[in-house]
Amino acid sequence: MRPSGRDLNEMRAVSIETGITKHAEGSCMIRMGDTHVLCTATLEDRVPPFIKGSGLGWVTAEYGMLPRSTSSRMRREASAGKQGGRTVEIQRLIGRSLRAGVDRVALGERQITVDCDVIQADGGTRCASITGGWIALRLAVNQLLKSGEVLTDPLIDPVAAVSCGIYAGQPVLDLDYPEDSTAGVDGNFIMTGSGQLIEIQMSAEGSTFSRDQMDQLMGLAEKGVGELVAAQKAATSA
Amino acid sequence: MRPSGRDLNEMRAVSIETGITKHAEGSCMIRMGDTHVLCTATLEDRVPPFIKGSGLGWVTAEYGMLPRSTSSRMRREASAGKQGGRTVEIQRLIGRSLRAGVDRVALGERQITVDCDVIQADGGTRCASITGGWIALRLAVNQLLKSGEVLTDPLIDPVAAVSCGIYAGQPVLDLDYPEDSTAGVDGNFIMTGSGQLIEIQMSAEGSTFSRDQMDQLMGLAEKGVGELVAAQKAATSA
Amino acid sequence: MRPSGRDLNEMRAVSIETGITKHAEGSCMIRMGDTHVLCTATLEDRVPPFIKGSGLGWVTAEYGMLPRSTSSRMRREASAGKQGGRTVEIQRLIGRSLRAGVDRVALGERQITVDCDVIQADGGTRCASITGGWIALRLAVNQLLKSGEVLTDPLIDPVAAVSCGIYAGQPVLDLDYPEDSTAGVDGNFIMTGSGQLIEIQMSAEGSTFSRDQMDQLMGLAEKGVGELVAAQKAATSA
Amino acid sequence: MRPSGRDLNEMRAVSIETGITKHAEGSCMIRMGDTHVLCTATLEDRVPPFIKGSGLGWVTAEYGMLPRSTSSRMRREASAGKQGGRTVEIQRLIGRSLRAGVDRVALGERQITVDCDVIQADGGTRCASITGGWIALRLAVNQLLKSGEVLTDPLIDPVAAVSCGIYAGQPVLDLDYPEDSTAGVDGNFIMTGSGQLIEIQMSAEGSTFSRDQMDQLMGLAEKGVGELVAAQKAATSA
Amino acid sequence: MRPSGRDLNEMRAVSIETGITKHAEGSCMIRMGDTHVLCTATLEDRVPPFIKGSGLGWVTAEYGMLPRSTSSRMRREASAGKQGGRTVEIQRLIGRSLRAGVDRVALGERQITVDCDVIQADGGTRCASITGGWIALRLAVNQLLKSGEVLTDPLIDPVAAVSCGIYAGQPVLDLDYPEDSTAGVDGNFIMTGSGQLIEIQMSAEGSTFSRDQMDQLMGLAEKGVGELVAAQKAATSA
Amino acid sequence: MRPSGRDLNEMRAVSIETGITKHAEGSCMIRMGDTHVLCTATLEDRVPPFIKGSGLGWVTAEYGMLPRSTSSRMRREASAGKQGGRTVEIQRLIGRSLRAGVDRVALGERQITVDCDVIQADGGTRCASITGGWIALRLAVNQLLKSGEVLTDPLIDPVAAVSCGIYAGQPVLDLDYPEDSTAGVDGNFIMTGSGQLIEIQMSAEGSTFSRDQMDQLMGLAEKGVGELVAAQKAATSA
Repeated sequence: MRPSGRDLNEMRAVSIETGITKHAEGSCMIRMGDTHVLCTATLEDRVPPFIKGSGLGWVTAEYGMLPRSTSSRMRREASAGKQGGRTVEIQRLIGRSLRAGVDRVALGERQITVDCDVIQADGGTRCASITGGWIALRLAVNQLLKSGEVLTDPLIDPVAAVSCGIYAGQPVLDLDYPEDSTAGVDGNFIMTGSGQLIEIQMSAEGSTFSRDQMDQLMGLAEKGVGELVAAQKAATSA
Repeated sequence: MRPSGRDLNEMRAVSIETGITKHAEGSCMIRMGDTHVLCTATLEDRVPPFIKGSGLGWVTAEYGMLPRSTSSRMRREASAGKQGGRTVEIQRLIGRSLRAGVDRVALGERQITVDCDVIQADGGTRCASITGGWIALRLAVNQLLKSGEVLTDPLIDPVAAVSCGIYAGQPVLDLDYPEDSTAGVDGNFIMTGSGQLIEIQMSAEGSTFSRDQMDQLMGLAEKGVGELVAAQKAATSA
Repeated sequence: MRPSGRDLNEMRAVSIETGITKHAEGSCMIRMGDTHVLCTATLEDRVPPFIKGSGLGWVTAEYGMLPRSTSSRMRREASAGKQGGRTVEIQRLIGRSLRAGVDRVALGERQITVDCDVIQADGGTRCASITGGWIALRLAVNQLLKSGEVLTDPLIDPVAAVSCGIYAGQPVLDLDYPEDSTAGVDGNFIMTGSGQLIEIQMSAEGSTFSRDQMDQLMGLAEKGVGELVAAQKAATSA
Repeated sequence: MRPSGRDLNEMRAVSIETGITKHAEGSCMIRMGDTHVLCTATLEDRVPPFIKGSGLGWVTAEYGMLPRSTSSRMRREASAGKQGGRTVEIQRLIGRSLRAGVDRVALGERQITVDCDVIQADGGTRCASITGGWIALRLAVNQLLKSGEVLTDPLIDPVAAVSCGIYAGQPVLDLDYPEDSTAGVDGNFIMTGSGQLIEIQMSAEGSTFSRDQMDQLMGLAEKGVGELVAAQKAATSA
Repeated sequence: MRPSGRDLNEMRAVSIETGITKHAEGSCMIRMGDTHVLCTATLEDRVPPFIKGSGLGWVTAEYGMLPRSTSSRMRREASAGKQGGRTVEIQRLIGRSLRAGVDRVALGERQITVDCDVIQADGGTRCASITGGWIALRLAVNQLLKSGEVLTDPLIDPVAAVSCGIYAGQPVLDLDYPEDSTAGVDGNFIMTGSGQLIEIQMSAEGSTFSRDQMDQLMGLAEKGVGELVAAQKAATSA
Repeated sequence: MRPSGRDLNEMRAVSIETGITKHAEGSCMIRMGDTHVLCTATLEDRVPPFIKGSGLGWVTAEYGMLPRSTSSRMRREASAGKQGGRTVEIQRLIGRSLRAGVDRVALGERQITVDCDVIQADGGTRCASITGGWIALRLAVNQLLKSGEVLTDPLIDPVAAVSCGIYAGQPVLDLDYPEDSTAGVDGNFIMTGSGQLIEIQMSAEGSTFSRDQMDQLMGLAEKGVGELVAAQKAATSA
């Protein structure tokens, strides 16, 4: 019934390749089906002005899409002269989500910038960015722990994200682009490895949904995030 | 226990004054406690290029804050040279939310722009904007119905919004600024008059929340939106 | 003979409501007929770089129009990405005019920013902004005097402004929009409470005027400013 | 008593050199003392959208200063990414002033753009731009008359401008930079060859002026503009 | 003697992987040592306004660097609000270079946009972009030939580029970053498969070079481009 | 055979007028035929952040064209809101070229900004800017030497530039606009007074060139630069 033939509660194949650029302190290519996102984490000693001297660390994120990551070419935002509203929303979400899993006291006064660049898009790029972004963050923090610059692990709990929506009247997990572009209701669930919620964004375009449907979507999300956290652990345990 | 002395499930006083500018096709000043938002609806015959010739209507929104609507003066976005990320997020949310209550076929190929300008801010400005924006929209559509330009009412169901959050460990309804600025978890529920959900945005900063807490917040939201829809009806029935 | 039925030398009804926002150090809504401007004064301890360490104070102003303050909706300047030429001209004029009434030594090294936002426009918004802006400034300075932060009143003389022009061949006082949009010659006179001139901007579009007409307009302006200064005193004496 | 040793009512030496660029339809270098402005007029068949099809012509102006036209180098506006407020004000003034001397019906549906670029500045650049800009305009219109494209001369009356101000307590004509930078009161008078007024901009910074002083300045302006119009005629009569 | 141990006239290892994104009409990842560039070609039926109706085709290029493609993180150009001068220069160069190998009549009125995004940088990114960009272009044009939309091959001759410079007093081929950042003289040679020159950019920073040295660099370039063209043919012949 | 009737290896008439603005530390108007460029050098004690404290000086350049320096009017870059790609490329080239002739240790920690503004364009404006820019630089440095602020002449060798290209199949020297706009191959050679090369930019649009042709162009460039350096010496020796 789904275009891809997947079950309603079935994720796309997830693959994670770490250490893919020589410059970044942490990096991975995450692939959720045909959605491919390159995530890097950059470690810097400076922090934003509003926390200077506080002893607290900061984690922030930026998001971009290569012009031909999509089916028809998008205009390059650098050439358009600004980041679009969608980009700004997504990168704020990624940053907020990752910070929810960070002990900023333990991190100390340093900043980690997570860049998520979509190489190929097929739906769910923001969720892939959060899940892959956490891996890059994990790898960068591992360096800090190994070098002794940081003594207590500032990563409290893994952070991962999955999309759910109502497609052809049925609640489905991990929408791909053909589903995403026709679903009247869809959203993103950002959760921790221990099953706590960080952020929920459910939105209906030209439609509405009931509280009961919301409960079903929440159940799917819990299943999906559980699988992603397992994949994160596998990728970073080596 | 709440700074304002309100009960956990108690809204702020809501007041709605309609017809407050002579130029706009629909307008109101909505006051939720000390949060005051001026909402106007502008009716135009042209539609955005992407629906030209489709016969469908369009509803969009823009949001702004006067520089001294806040406790300390904010830089004017026109002078900064662009709308900030928060502004863009909010106005996209308002537009999406209002469209969810509109039958775009019945509206016909015309555009209604809802402007929400915050005169005084004390938390919950985006929810007040949606609730008040719908009133301005209602009044503008009433003109179309009265003049016979539109024959079937394109407003299917009222749209209203309320914030909920976890303050001092307790789920509370309709956060004001002192609550909003310290709550680790808060969000917005946009719903219709018949109790369907349009959008949920729950977010935790430096915290997380459980599925059980999410259920309690949803219950508060249903109560709050119910009261707002009653106020909308009272204000527009005259 | 005038569209409004007013005499040639008759002002519109002026109303001034002070203290209308809880955050600003000084505020008012000034209404000159159907032109309504919200003015706030913000007090800050920092001054612009070019006078840092000089011991002198600074007064500056910003001006904006709500998108639907006008008969047809104007594009929001924040969304257009910059303040238009007209806006920049007006806010520079407001700032210059207000500074002419300020003893910057007595004010001491602090800045007052006057924001003038047009809620509803019907001609003469820049004059209403100056007249109302001075009231907001007066109220903010009163706070400084009451608290003892400033010992000598830095406001030497009230500042008010009125427009005059030649409409249907006749010199008229305080043009409203129907007059303003057809007058070939019009301008603004900014004066002090004691009758001194601060700024004159007379301009002809598709027309010219004689020195004799200029004299008549100056006489009208003196009458109008006198009435405005009386209204300012009444509004701020309480 | 004046830094330059001039009499109170004495203009700087004026020199006008026409035909100085091979591309423009009309051009001149105007020198008022050490203020040198290069003015060109460009003739185009297209008009701005708001008058398309009206049969009316349009005259507009742009203004710029070379970065080292001033005593210390100014930042290039193209590199700053926008025209400053002062530039926008000045070029709007030049355009308005020149249009006041144009019969737009006689001009027909075409546009003339007058560019005024300051090569060297020593006070009074906007007045020199108007006076020199009119010459470039005159020369471009002469081409239209010669070619028969335009049959009735659209230039009704010459347009020229001069600054006046109160320097060291005395009304003076045609301020140079040392005067301009210390005068508390100064302004610009734009007039026609037949002595009618087009625009008056009098402004006081940290000072005020009386109606009597205004009268004296107006007298000086009449004398100055008379001399400039004579120079314009001499330069364009050949 | 070179940091990498290469001979003076030895290229870095070149690897080319084609067909790496599912959306683009042509794509490759080109790796010259540690410099990795993702190149895609997008085929569109529309052409820029200046050749509309001419029957001629157009090839253009855009260039970007991922923020952490470099040793320390660069600011994202989309977030900075504009493409820097270096980016603009490079993408103009890529476009010009590729067009030199295209028969625009044979291509017909369609546009191909080549995007070159640097995933990892280690010197010579613009040369890798040209060499890899031609491969993406070749693959996209192959589609046009296969489908019969284009009958004559518009790609006259392969286009490739290599950098040369004077490092530690010696002419060297294909500089990597450690060489590039200290070489006083370096530049890029863009050539065709048949050995004709398209563009030469030699530049000295804090140094100069003789005509004799220029001749030696040209010899190195001919060798390097020869090897690159062989690699292009191998990669696209399958 | 050339539109101007010049021999293949014949330069346009060069004239250099120095000291043409009273404010700049060095200035000239350089005319190469109908190409006229005003060059000024501004001396400042501050240096860019990246060399602060290094003891080294800096030379930089900016380039602009007056709107009607060209045959049809160009949009003013300040009004377009940014410098175009061509402008940025040219001003970077001018700065780089001039720095190649400067001993930055001898200059000491100060900056010289060379502004090149095209008054009238007829091809070869960037070369005229470099040649004339060096003269302005020479004159500004002479002031530093005369005043004793700098003891050793930091100008090692004159810098001049000339364009060459292939017009109607023949290598020609110093292209004017009619040649430049049709030449398939053209470029710029920047050289020192002693015949060393600083920068070569050869570029083919819709064409290619052979190594043999490149050699011929280099020969023409050597002749042309020789004549320009002689003119520079004549203009600055007085």
